Amino acid sequence: MGIVKSKFNKLLSDASTRNRSLLCVGLDPDPAKLHNKDVLEFNKAIIDATSDLVCAYKPNLAFYEAMGIRGLQILKKTVDYIPKDIPVIGDAKRGDIGNTAAAYAKALFDFYKFDAVTLSPYLGYDSIEPFLAYNGKGVFVLCRTSNKSASDFQDLEDNYGMKFYQSVALRANDWNSSGNIGLVVGATYPEELKQIRKICPDMPILIPGIGAQGGDLELSVKYGVDKNSEKAIIVAARQVLYASTAPDYAEAARAAARELRDNINKFRKL
Amino acid sequence: MGIVKSKFNKLLSDASTRNRSLLCVGLDPDPAKLHNKDVLEFNKAIIDATSDLVCAYKPNLAFYEAMGIRGLQILKKTVDYIPKDIPVIGDAKRGDIGNTAAAYAKALFDFYKFDAVTLSPYLGYDSIEPFLAYNGKGVFVLCRTSNKSASDFQDLEDNYGMKFYQSVALRANDWNSSGNIGLVVGATYPEELKQIRKICPDMPILIPGIGAQGGDLELSVKYGVDKNSEKAIIVAARQVLYASTAPDYAEAARAAARELRDNINKFRKL
Repeated sequence: MGIVKSKFNKLLSDASTRNRSLLCVGLDPDPAKLHNKDVLEFNKAIIDATSDLVCAYKPNLAFYEAMGIRGLQILKKTVDYIPKDIPVIGDAKRGDIGNTAAAYAKALFDFYKFDAVTLSPYLGYDSIEPFLAYNGKGVFVLCRTSNKSASDFQDLEDNYGMKFYQSVALRANDWNSSGNIGLVVGATYPEELKQIRKICPDMPILIPGIGAQGGDLELSVKYGVDKNSEKAIIVAARQVLYASTAPDYAEAARAAARELRDNINKFRKL
Repeated sequence: MGIVKSKFNKLLSDASTRNRSLLCVGLDPDPAKLHNKDVLEFNKAIIDATSDLVCAYKPNLAFYEAMGIRGLQILKKTVDYIPKDIPVIGDAKRGDIGNTAAAYAKALFDFYKFDAVTLSPYLGYDSIEPFLAYNGKGVFVLCRTSNKSASDFQDLEDNYGMKFYQSVALRANDWNSSGNIGLVVGATYPEELKQIRKICPDMPILIPGIGAQGGDLELSVKYGVDKNSEKAIIVAARQVLYASTAPDYAEAARAAARELRDNINKFRKL
């Protein structure tokens, strides 16, 4: 491979190889769906049930922030609980000017100790740079998001026929001198995913949007992987976390995660 | 005025009229600059010293998150401490898909009880909508940010010669049926501010970037205000918070805030 394998990419690749998995479980607990289960115990049970089946975990900070201070204590303890050989991607989608971005990087990398984070590109390079400066860590830049309104701005086309999300992918390549950048591309936009993989042949791509959001699993895998059938990180949250609401929820989550992992592998060239 | 005056806009306008002020103090405490002062006590002293001089306060969440859980407890107590007749803008720059955006809205409006928040437009309408649904609250959409790299993406020009940040301003108008949207435009880009004020003649515009970032105060006020010389919200943080590092820091902050308020007023047609 032409690019440097950063510490984060190595952690990801080792976990992916060891667990034979491109599956990332989104740890997004929703109290309304937990039927009075303790949130931290729920997370721990999900982690125990799936940590040999995933290549990464991805808690989205919104779900913890919505629980107030208590939620952030749960988030910190959840990250601490995840085995150190599984990368944890903090889905934060932050984006702010230089000195403020540095404060967010401190929060996400030094306090919560995420191995990687998601960031919004709207403010440009100097909003990303303070995160890249942590060169053992990974940075996933939002490129094409999974939601319906993604097209509002991401499809705006410039004079050269280049869409905004394509410009983001190109710039991310330019910024990737330390090999620690990846992109976020929704499973709900397989054609865009295909194009982005061409623009960035070597980057990890984080792909949310299968399951509840309706993204196509087969196309997400086929278009998302690199030439070695790796580096697509397929996210599932609700379909794993809430596979059962009964006391056997952890076993059900394990069964759902295993089935998904195996289905993903069917579409890889292994 | 042609548009509805939302509850947030009324709160803002009342505070602005009462204190004869377009000044918003950015409550962004940096432990490295506080010389061992207690952060919450520092914030309270700054609020006590300036609450009759401002139209709003704006804590940026990054500075609190960087302090870990303790920082968020300080943030919550800081928001609680601000007099209820001064609006508090949570500078969060969040932007996520629908159900996740709803979780962020819950955190920012229900838990921290901000009167308004800043949001990133990258994900489009459905990432903003859950915040607009709180129709007593305000939403400031990032349009042209104050940083150097703002031009990386915000200046991308479409087939019609429209720049990305201009598209954001236009869309924000479309979305503003409840009259609770505003924009964020950096003081460091006065020409862009002038254009944006033309596109959105009635919206509040939050204008960071004077002081340490070098934005021009006179042009920010002249180009930022609406036809009644109102609705520009000029943010100052470092030049007020750290006007003195001596024990008289609160008095020095008050003097700096008063001078800024009065300088701003010189450029208004009052």
